[in-house]
Amino acid sequence: MGIPEEHRPVINDAAMTRGPLPGSRKIYVAGRLCQDVSVPMREIELTPIPGSRPDAPEQANPSVVVYDTSGPYSDPDVSIDVRCGLPPLRFGWVTGRDDVQELSAPSSEFGRQRLADSALDEVRFSKLRRPLRAKPGRCVTQMAYARQGVITPEMEFVAIRENQRRGQADDSLTRQHPGDPRGAQIPPIITPEFVRDELARGRAIMPCNINHPELEPMIIGRNFLVKINANIGNSAVSSSIEEEVEKMVWATRCGADTVMDLSTGPNIHETREWIIRNSPVPIGTVPIYQALEKVDGRPEELTWELFRDTLIEQAEQGVDYFTIHAAVLLRYVPLTAQRLTGIVSRGGSIHAKWCLAHHRENFAYEHWDEICEIMAAYDVAFSIGDGLRPGSLADANDEAQFAELKTQGELTRRAWEYNVQVMNEGPGHVPMHMIEENMRKQLEWCHEAPFYTLGPIVTDIAAGHDHLASAIGAAMIGWYGCALLCYVTPKEHLGLPNKNDVRDGVLAYKIAAHAADLAKGHPGAQYRDNAMSKARFEFRWKDQFNLAFDSEKAGTFHDETMPHPSARLAHFCSMCGPKFCAMQITREIREGVATQGHDEEQAMREGLRAKGEEYRRTYLASDQPGR
Amino acid sequence: MGIPEEHRPVINDAAMTRGPLPGSRKIYVAGRLCQDVSVPMREIELTPIPGSRPDAPEQANPSVVVYDTSGPYSDPDVSIDVRCGLPPLRFGWVTGRDDVQELSAPSSEFGRQRLADSALDEVRFSKLRRPLRAKPGRCVTQMAYARQGVITPEMEFVAIRENQRRGQADDSLTRQHPGDPRGAQIPPIITPEFVRDELARGRAIMPCNINHPELEPMIIGRNFLVKINANIGNSAVSSSIEEEVEKMVWATRCGADTVMDLSTGPNIHETREWIIRNSPVPIGTVPIYQALEKVDGRPEELTWELFRDTLIEQAEQGVDYFTIHAAVLLRYVPLTAQRLTGIVSRGGSIHAKWCLAHHRENFAYEHWDEICEIMAAYDVAFSIGDGLRPGSLADANDEAQFAELKTQGELTRRAWEYNVQVMNEGPGHVPMHMIEENMRKQLEWCHEAPFYTLGPIVTDIAAGHDHLASAIGAAMIGWYGCALLCYVTPKEHLGLPNKNDVRDGVLAYKIAAHAADLAKGHPGAQYRDNAMSKARFEFRWKDQFNLAFDSEKAGTFHDETMPHPSARLAHFCSMCGPKFCAMQITREIREGVATQGHDEEQAMREGLRAKGEEYRRTYLASDQPGR
Repeated sequence: MGIPEEHRPVINDAAMTRGPLPGSRKIYVAGRLCQDVSVPMREIELTPIPGSRPDAPEQANPSVVVYDTSGPYSDPDVSIDVRCGLPPLRFGWVTGRDDVQELSAPSSEFGRQRLADSALDEVRFSKLRRPLRAKPGRCVTQMAYARQGVITPEMEFVAIRENQRRGQADDSLTRQHPGDPRGAQIPPIITPEFVRDELARGRAIMPCNINHPELEPMIIGRNFLVKINANIGNSAVSSSIEEEVEKMVWATRCGADTVMDLSTGPNIHETREWIIRNSPVPIGTVPIYQALEKVDGRPEELTWELFRDTLIEQAEQGVDYFTIHAAVLLRYVPLTAQRLTGIVSRGGSIHAKWCLAHHRENFAYEHWDEICEIMAAYDVAFSIGDGLRPGSLADANDEAQFAELKTQGELTRRAWEYNVQVMNEGPGHVPMHMIEENMRKQLEWCHEAPFYTLGPIVTDIAAGHDHLASAIGAAMIGWYGCALLCYVTPKEHLGLPNKNDVRDGVLAYKIAAHAADLAKGHPGAQYRDNAMSKARFEFRWKDQFNLAFDSEKAGTFHDETMPHPSARLAHFCSMCGPKFCAMQITREIREGVATQGHDEEQAMREGLRAKGEEYRRTYLASDQPGR
Repeated sequence: MGIPEEHRPVINDAAMTRGPLPGSRKIYVAGRLCQDVSVPMREIELTPIPGSRPDAPEQANPSVVVYDTSGPYSDPDVSIDVRCGLPPLRFGWVTGRDDVQELSAPSSEFGRQRLADSALDEVRFSKLRRPLRAKPGRCVTQMAYARQGVITPEMEFVAIRENQRRGQADDSLTRQHPGDPRGAQIPPIITPEFVRDELARGRAIMPCNINHPELEPMIIGRNFLVKINANIGNSAVSSSIEEEVEKMVWATRCGADTVMDLSTGPNIHETREWIIRNSPVPIGTVPIYQALEKVDGRPEELTWELFRDTLIEQAEQGVDYFTIHAAVLLRYVPLTAQRLTGIVSRGGSIHAKWCLAHHRENFAYEHWDEICEIMAAYDVAFSIGDGLRPGSLADANDEAQFAELKTQGELTRRAWEYNVQVMNEGPGHVPMHMIEENMRKQLEWCHEAPFYTLGPIVTDIAAGHDHLASAIGAAMIGWYGCALLCYVTPKEHLGLPNKNDVRDGVLAYKIAAHAADLAKGHPGAQYRDNAMSKARFEFRWKDQFNLAFDSEKAGTFHDETMPHPSARLAHFCSMCGPKFCAMQITREIREGVATQGHDEEQAMREGLRAKGEEYRRTYLASDQPGR
């Protein structure tokens, strides 16, 4: 404890990505039921269309409000100190329910050991809060509240958040295709009551540990916007705490709805604390990774007691959901023996190895009820792992995979008896035509609990481009009903992703998730697309960049070919050059016709011949070289 | 003509990408019907699995033979001089049919003018051949031969090429999922007779102009491997001849099956000559671009005579397929007036503007029969343009688009009367759930002629990542039956693609096309995936890189995190570190079990308990630190 605070700059503040998102300002939408609720959104401000003549008035383009995962980092009015963590906006909501107690020390043995170890002071997050836990006999999960008919502030928060202030959208851009929801039942407006009802049924979850008050609540379910998860985490080979926190901030800035910390190296307890305290999004983990770390990487030496202590340790830090591979049963392991790639899930292989070594049933399965009790005491959600997911197309949809899925369904039902929120993990490597079967079976066998898939990746030979190969499968399964898409980066199968890879992975999955929303006909999903198309047609380049998921890359790419600043105002682009732009020609066609006052198709047809020559004169007069 | 050859280095030889493809050698498979037929393929050589003990023998991994679009550039035994062009392998086949005549001079006026202009000598390809044309009264299209029951060397070539020497594949890796062909009828082995039959029915095309003898024949059709096209081309703003030839070689090396030269800038006649003479793949163009160039960018001044001369000019250079927007009819133009983004096809907007200006029907439609006669005289295939394709999700599948598609169908029938090969172009911007309707209508209305789509792109807001957003739609429509996928680069909507963008676009589309083949259950499609998965499971890193579509990026990404050369031999990767690799653990599980001689599932179950302790000892003994 002897190192003064100023000498412990584990985290370099300046490295964190800060400031408003491109062309945008942060706005907050107030709740009605709960006056503390203030939902952050991103408002993209657009430029007006210049008047058609110098003296004509400009025509305004209303701003576009979109979902915002970036947290306070993109609000210049919030002062951020990563050493203190983000403001604990939910703290009052959690403690105000009078069903939690503050603990004087961590309940987990390991947590207490780490706290007592002064050698760790220099990597430790210093402003630790005391952990909260449900009072005896109380259940503090959002599912429990929902089933009691209570609408929590968290529920109102996500209802407002999902609507993206759609009520104030520009009418001319709200038109969209009806979509093919494939069984999803998405109401035109998300109400807090609808959120409550979906949570009560188990069709949606809100991962929000009572020990993660910094979190901005979000919801995962088939009747809400499709969400994406980004994995970060160091390994024994590479990466530091600083890099991991930076990756988390970076991932959420790019659009990640949740982040999983999959660290396996040293100091993972401390790394996790830094990440959670600074994370505006739910954090998921795979506790078995850390448990294995504690037995020096020897799966056979794992014990239920050690695993249990790890769950409590992480729950008290504020992890919002746990991947637990409790459905990898002893009798399923031999089903993988004939596979081309065996077991590819780390968690799955650890449990499988333990089962075989002891010839005993998976301890997580055997102790499921106790695990549920722990989850319920902190409102940690289950992400029931798919430890036997296929690691190659050859192994897709096989007996091992589907046997485990059925058990995931059984565990889902049992968790619901404890009011614990549940989602189910899914594959993996699956060719396109076999994706839908995964969704169908999961909906049926897991009783409509949210599905959370890794891709799926649709070919095995895309190494270096696996973010793309898996975005194909992710978009499809998102359309079919998957609620949360776990990203894959370009480094998948090859190496540990760096910041750029995280960015490319998140962007690929933003696109996939949004494509799914569009296909489902999610209300309002097409609004931003329409605004983009209008900006394209009007050559508003800056607006195009800002409306794109990746404003930075869009702007850079444009400027690469046409570096002069005036090109951002040009009525053409480098693809066609000044004379050949189809959009420009169309505008001229339309203007040529519109100025004659014949908007109607029938009128156009009748008047066309007469107008031909007139139009030709108009056009020729305006088509001066260089225009 | 006064500039000596050594002073005309328009093309920098050294810049061309040469040499064998990664880890591969070029092989040639001989024809049976025609002794001239020698089909190039890429053989990826794999490393053996080391023996389990130092004295145990290695276990060989048979090489994997794959389709190869890279032409002679990847064969170190072929000497290449871009000033001379590639060897004209089809020349004997074309002239040997005794139905063509050599012309003493180009038939097109423009072609003769360019040839006579000595100012162009320094940009001109110098080793010009005399153009060929069908003898009067003869039709030289592959469709005509097919309908006469003739199997040409070209047909045998593609039959062999499509089979990828599958007959010699390793049995253990040929297992694959049955697929969902959605109406495609793909035989287990492609025979020359099957090729002939598909060509005769119009269900497939082989773009192969008699004036492009350098071409390695390929086929485009729903019952063959899904193909991809890469667009290159300079514009008034940017790019040189050298860059364009380089892009073509680069694109085919990355895997492009056809290349479209969409140049709109100066010297497009000469640029095209260089590209065709050096291209092993079919070259497509949009002749209206050059026609417009000839009237200084004023669509109203286009005439049929000028367009006709342009078609002949390009046909005699060897262009293999022409995009012609003949289905943009006058009465369809007003249907675009209420669109969000109007007409976004350059060709479409040019024809539309001409139609409105003159109030006359599209001259390409009016002169369709004459155009068919020209196409038939050189065997140029039609790619009937979709000038009214949607440029935004909002405009997808609208009346204008489908009106044009119906007319594309009418023109297809009429072209077939002249034995001209036809494919139809399709969209564009389409949300996922509306893609299938495009395919269904095209198959029905265009009588199963091959479909050739641009993406489709599934959201409008992916600027900077449009290769990815469109690969999603491309993979899906490829599965549904689309035969040729026109790539989109990351620069789409933003700028002119450079070499890197071409690469990223081609790779994205290789993945999409292959994903489609897998979903259709194309015979042998999964073989390379299986070989990759086996390499993964056996930690054969080098083989993984070579089996990937993008060997270079895969290798680079791996080495980024683990730069030491020994890491390429390591039984783990940077993602999990040495102790946590799931694949490694699985192998140990399997080996642990296999060494007991209990492969069978039933035996495993029975013996498991007894083996538990034994296995534990085995594992612990082998799991030394650092392994």
